[in-house]
Order: sequence, then structure tokens, then C-alpha cells
Amino acid sequence: MSVTLADCSAMDARDTLAHARARFSIPADVIYLDGNSLGALPKSAPARVADVTEREWGEDLIRSWNKNDWIGMPARLGARIAPLIGAAPDEVTVADSTSVNLFKLAAAAIGMQKLRRVILTERANFPTDLYVLQGLEALLGGAVALRMVERDALETALDRDVALLALTHTDFKSGAIHDMRALTTAAHKAGALALWDLSHSAGAMDLHLDADEVDLAIGCGYKYLNGGPGAPSYIHVARKHHDAIRQPLSGWMGHAAPFDFGEHYRPAEGMTRMLCGTPAVLSMVALEEGLKTFDGIDMGAVRTKSKALGDLFLALLDMRCGQFGFEIACSRASTHRGSQVSFRHRHGYAIMQALIGQGVIGDFRAPDVLRFGFAPLYTRYADIWLALERLAAIMEAGTWREDRFQVRAAVT
Amino acid sequence: MSVTLADCSAMDARDTLAHARARFSIPADVIYLDGNSLGALPKSAPARVADVTEREWGEDLIRSWNKNDWIGMPARLGARIAPLIGAAPDEVTVADSTSVNLFKLAAAAIGMQKLRRVILTERANFPTDLYVLQGLEALLGGAVALRMVERDALETALDRDVALLALTHTDFKSGAIHDMRALTTAAHKAGALALWDLSHSAGAMDLHLDADEVDLAIGCGYKYLNGGPGAPSYIHVARKHHDAIRQPLSGWMGHAAPFDFGEHYRPAEGMTRMLCGTPAVLSMVALEEGLKTFDGIDMGAVRTKSKALGDLFLALLDMRCGQFGFEIACSRASTHRGSQVSFRHRHGYAIMQALIGQGVIGDFRAPDVLRFGFAPLYTRYADIWLALERLAAIMEAGTWREDRFQVRAAVT
Repeated sequence: MSVTLADCSAMDARDTLAHARARFSIPADVIYLDGNSLGALPKSAPARVADVTEREWGEDLIRSWNKNDWIGMPARLGARIAPLIGAAPDEVTVADSTSVNLFKLAAAAIGMQKLRRVILTERANFPTDLYVLQGLEALLGGAVALRMVERDALETALDRDVALLALTHTDFKSGAIHDMRALTTAAHKAGALALWDLSHSAGAMDLHLDADEVDLAIGCGYKYLNGGPGAPSYIHVARKHHDAIRQPLSGWMGHAAPFDFGEHYRPAEGMTRMLCGTPAVLSMVALEEGLKTFDGIDMGAVRTKSKALGDLFLALLDMRCGQFGFEIACSRASTHRGSQVSFRHRHGYAIMQALIGQGVIGDFRAPDVLRFGFAPLYTRYADIWLALERLAAIMEAGTWREDRFQVRAAVT
Repeated sequence: MSVTLADCSAMDARDTLAHARARFSIPADVIYLDGNSLGALPKSAPARVADVTEREWGEDLIRSWNKNDWIGMPARLGARIAPLIGAAPDEVTVADSTSVNLFKLAAAAIGMQKLRRVILTERANFPTDLYVLQGLEALLGGAVALRMVERDALETALDRDVALLALTHTDFKSGAIHDMRALTTAAHKAGALALWDLSHSAGAMDLHLDADEVDLAIGCGYKYLNGGPGAPSYIHVARKHHDAIRQPLSGWMGHAAPFDFGEHYRPAEGMTRMLCGTPAVLSMVALEEGLKTFDGIDMGAVRTKSKALGDLFLALLDMRCGQFGFEIACSRASTHRGSQVSFRHRHGYAIMQALIGQGVIGDFRAPDVLRFGFAPLYTRYADIWLALERLAAIMEAGTWREDRFQVRAAVT
């Protein structure tokens, strides 16, 4: 089997999502396969951010909270995210960072499960999720115990001490996808709540939180949702928990009547109680433009294309780079893989630097993983072909051995 | 005594800070006396925000974390804030919202004071501070007890159970200023730590955290610091506490080696451990431009002008509006007053709406307080004169009785 650039271009011509690429500004000299770290710039974002800065802030000033509905942003953005994750519009809001939101929900879950104290997760969970859960454990002393197990031990570890099963849906390194419905059902059977971090999933595949009966979820705004660097995060709480849930970061934006300035906290109705401080407006509006890139997009089609892009990458990697000692670190079965592929090489860091030097931007994850993410709204089949072409050339020429590619930067 | 507009213009002509107004874009038809709710737009902000959006995000993409030093922003902005609050550059960092940062520090303080469990504050503290402390109390059950007392009972309430004295330096309604040094000393004598919320102080007066031996502080980026709507907040920890302090929102940005992706949290050195999730870059750069408006500004001169603006406002209020039944709700002694004045009227909401209709923007604080803030970098003496001229006209004509000024908006 051989796949040519012309084959890939033909796939692009047939792609029902191809039109969405025009919604983004992507540098002509870059093949961007890192939308799972930072989504590309929506074309509409610069004008919107400029308008909010110059007119809404500069001219309307404090009046914008009402006049330009800054106060409504968390709910408005939440309602835009809801259909991307299979939730109802009033089950999602936007605030703070993913790590902060995980803290809120994990603490809230413990509060809803008074006789259980274990939070169950896997060792390979995204590290910041582990760190936040460790922070909650340290704060609450004996009231919370974090249980970290291997992936295949999760179901057996779901015993009657478990208050909360907290997992990331798509693994950040391997791209492995958990069976959200099966694990949520297993958690419920064991009397636990289920919390999913959707950071490496949402925007790249269809998700069905309500159908899967997920209790709680969080996710990142700056990856596949294209919300810009450090974009705010979203929180989902299933409606059946809205009355019972209490979260500890009970700032004024979550108060039932924040502008009454009363001295006792009273949680607002619905998702508003998940808010804490004042929303970061400029970052919020960039995220809103990111979410608009999904207007009219069928998430099932997104998933179909995502799988095809990954399959193409792996097929070309075998064909073009089979002799260079790469060890595949993701599933070859697209049904078990998120919108990314990864493979190992002991010189992975230098190889990725050399590739970036050639305009192909992927991610390196210590100690030796090269990772490439596919954003179906703007990644083309031809991009995959060209990326592998350049990777093969770098490996054949040994370009990566040059000194300039060996020095580790602060962030990799 | 009579003060004319010409007198005020002469004061502006002599004002050594008058040049700083050119650093801001302020609508020509607005007299903006609400910089204590949302600071005005720095002239440099739109171009900077546009550059970060279009070039750093759009073109440099993920490479910006190194190339454009996004990763260094929290420390870089913290170092800019430090001289404004009398702290060392390595004692301040920027992240999250003020409410989130209060949670971090209050929880950390309890952790540093193992045999004490009381957090002492005053009932009139800014409500979100009370709500966050109540959230911590609810989360930690018996391990924390919040003690809310009247202002004049604070010193006597500082008993040996108190772990932390947590106060806001300038009261959001009355503008009353606490004696930071005296209360911090009293807290230390009682064996407690002292935490100050500087939200309504920093940027409008000189502060001396290190000289006053303050342990912990937080503050808001979007008021007198001109950082834009919902700008990130800052955290200060005195250097002597850097090794001992642990905060529970232990996300990856506070990890000693976040990009090693290890499975156990290890706090970074210094203020970096106070970080949690990924910084909201667009909101951070707007704040950086806000902080640049203080370049070369003497904070003692800021305080002197702030007091003079407040005194002028109150003098003109007496002269021009003495007969309208306003009840002064702030100190008449400028040494005891922040950069704001406030007074009560049972129709305060409608009066403020009518005034806003005339281009004079102040703040209404339920149930009946009219509040006007003075940002010494851009508020002119002539602005005060014109504001009182219009207030007197509204009161004389009874304009505020019109129906359109009676309806309460969502945010007031």
C-alpha cells in the first residue's frame, strides 16, 4: 500500500468539514499538529477581542457588566459548550482554570457522599488532576483519601469506600480513551459518583454526558475548543445534583444575590453556584469566539475525521519511518484512541525540535514521547502527509543530531 | 469658602501627576469616578492585546510559552506589583481571582498554625471575602471556625485561638482604612498571622507590606491597577514564610517541575507554588499594561492627591448639595479614608442612575450608598467639580424621579 500527497489532497476535497478551516488563521508555513495543547486562532477572535477592549472596556467601562452582558458570560459560554459534550445548556458554566474547577467538584462530591472518603483515580491521569486531588487530600486530612491505581485495576478498586471516581477521558500521553458509559455505570453500581475531565476530548469527538449519566465534568477551554492561551475552563454538573451540590470556593459570583452584599453566603440556583470570583472578561470573549468555530458542526463527523487522520498518520509512520526505531505509544485501534497519536524515541526531544524547525509543530512529553494532535476543524489530510514527509527526511538526514536541537526549553 | 471650576483647573495645572492621565483612553463625555470598580483603559492595552492575540497566539502558537515568555508572566507581573505595595519582587505573583487566592492563603495559614483554628475577620469585610472564608469553614468542618466581629472589637477578639486575622485594608463601602501596621502587630502579639486584602487600596495609595511585617496579602487587578475587566489577582507571601507555606489548590503551574509530568505534587520554590492552573494569557497581558501606567509614579504623591480629591469632593458636596439630605457614610478625615467617598440617600439608586445619565459614573452599593472613587493617575480636580455641579443640578430638578432611573439592573 502506498499513499501519495495526491491521495491526501483528494481526501481533503471530499472532507465535509473542510470548510471549517477557513474559520481559523493558521500561518502558511506551519503544519500545526498541536491543537490539543493550544487551539489555533479563530479568525473572528482579533476583532472581537479588540472591540471588547476598546469599546466595551474603554468606552462603556463599568456599564458593560449590564450593557454588554459581561455578567451573563459564564452561562452563555456554558450553553455553547453543552452541545459539544452532550449536556443541557443549563448544566454547564465557564469559570476559572480546569485545576480550580476540579478542586471545586472533587470537594463538592466528598460533601455529597458523607459516609465515603475515597477518591479513586488512575496513576496516569493528567498530572495536574493528581496534584489537585492530592492538595484536597492534604487539606482535608483523614476526611479524604486519594487512591491511585493502574488503569486496568479501576473497576476492582471501586469498592464501597469510594465516594468519587475521577478520571480523564482521553489520556494526555497515550491518547487512550476510557469507556465513559461503562465506568460511570460501574461507579454508580458501587455507590460512587463519576467525574470526567474532558480536556483532551471535547471538541475533537462526540461526547454524551447526559446519555452516559455522568455526574460531574470539567474541561479545558484552550485545546480543541480554540479559546486562546489559558482560556477559562468549563464545569458540568448533572441537573439531578443541582440542588444538593455545594462547592467550597464560594465567592460572590456564585452567590444568590451578589450585589446585595449580604454577610452570609447563599448559593445561587443551578450552575451559577459553581462560580467563584469575577470572570476574566478578555479571556472569556476569546473563548466565546473559539466556541463559535463549532457553529453548525456535527460532532459525529468530527470524530469520524479525527479517527481517519490518526489512522493515516500511523499508516504513513509505518511506511515512511518504520526503520527509525519509533515505538508506538498509542492504540492502533482508532475506536480506543483520542484525536492524537504518540510514539517514543530516546531522542524524542531533539527530533521534535528538528521537526518544529521544519514548521511541523507537535508536542514532546517527557521523557521520550512525541505527540501529534489532530483538530478536525482545521487539520487536513495533506498536513499529515507533509508532516510524515518531513519527519522521514529529518530521520534520514539525522538533522536532529545538531546541537541546537538538544537544549531543553523551559516548557516543552 | 467657595471653590470654582477655575480653582480646580488651577489645581490640575499644578498637579505633579497630571501627565499620567495621557496614559489612559477615557471617553470625552464621561467623568469616570468608578476606577475602584473597573480601572480605565490604558492607551497601550489595545495594541498589546492585539499583538498577543494575532502574533503570539495566531502565529507563534504553542511556541509562545517560551518564545514570548508566557510562562514567566505570573512572576513578571508580580514583580511589577511589588513596589506598589511595598514588597520585594519575589514576594508577589499573579494568578486566578482574588476570591480563589484568598482561599489558597487562608487554607495555607490554617496549615501553618496547627494548634489554632479561628479565622478572625470583621462583618463589614468585602462580602466575597466572607463567603470564601465561610466556604473554607464549611469544607474543613471543625478544623476552622470563622469569627466575624464588628470593626472595633477586632483587637479584643484576637485571642490565643486565632490562627489568622483576615481583613480588607480599605472598606469597600465606607472607604475606612485599617491601621495595617498596628493590627498586624497586634495579630503577631496574639500569635496569629495577618492577611490583608488590598483590593480597594493598591494603586491609590502607598502601602508598606514588608515594613509593616504583613504575612500574607491578596488584591484585585481590575480596580486601581487598571488591568481590565476580571483581570487576574495577585498574591503576596512574606519571604520568611516561603519555605513553610503550602496551599491546597496545588495545580501543575505550582509544581517544582510541571513538565516532568510526575505523579506526585512537589511545590515549586518561592511564590511559584502559589500558582494553580494555566494563566489566562490575554487577561494577564492587559493587566501588564495596566501596571505599566504606574511606571515612574511615586505612590506617596498618589496618596497625597487621592486625599485632596476626596476632601474636595466632600467640601463641594457640603457646599452644593447640603440641603438634599445626603448622609455622609465615609470618614471626613482623609487619613482614615481610602481613595473614595460615600454617602447615603434612600433614593440612592435612582440618583446614581440619573447621574450616570449625565455622564458622571460612580457606583451604587445596596441598599442606599452612593460611592465615588478617585484614581489619582487620571482623575482631575475639575472632574470633581463637574460631578458635583451635575449632582446638584439633578437634585435641584428632581431628575432622578423619572421612571427610567428607578429600575434596578442585574449588576449595580
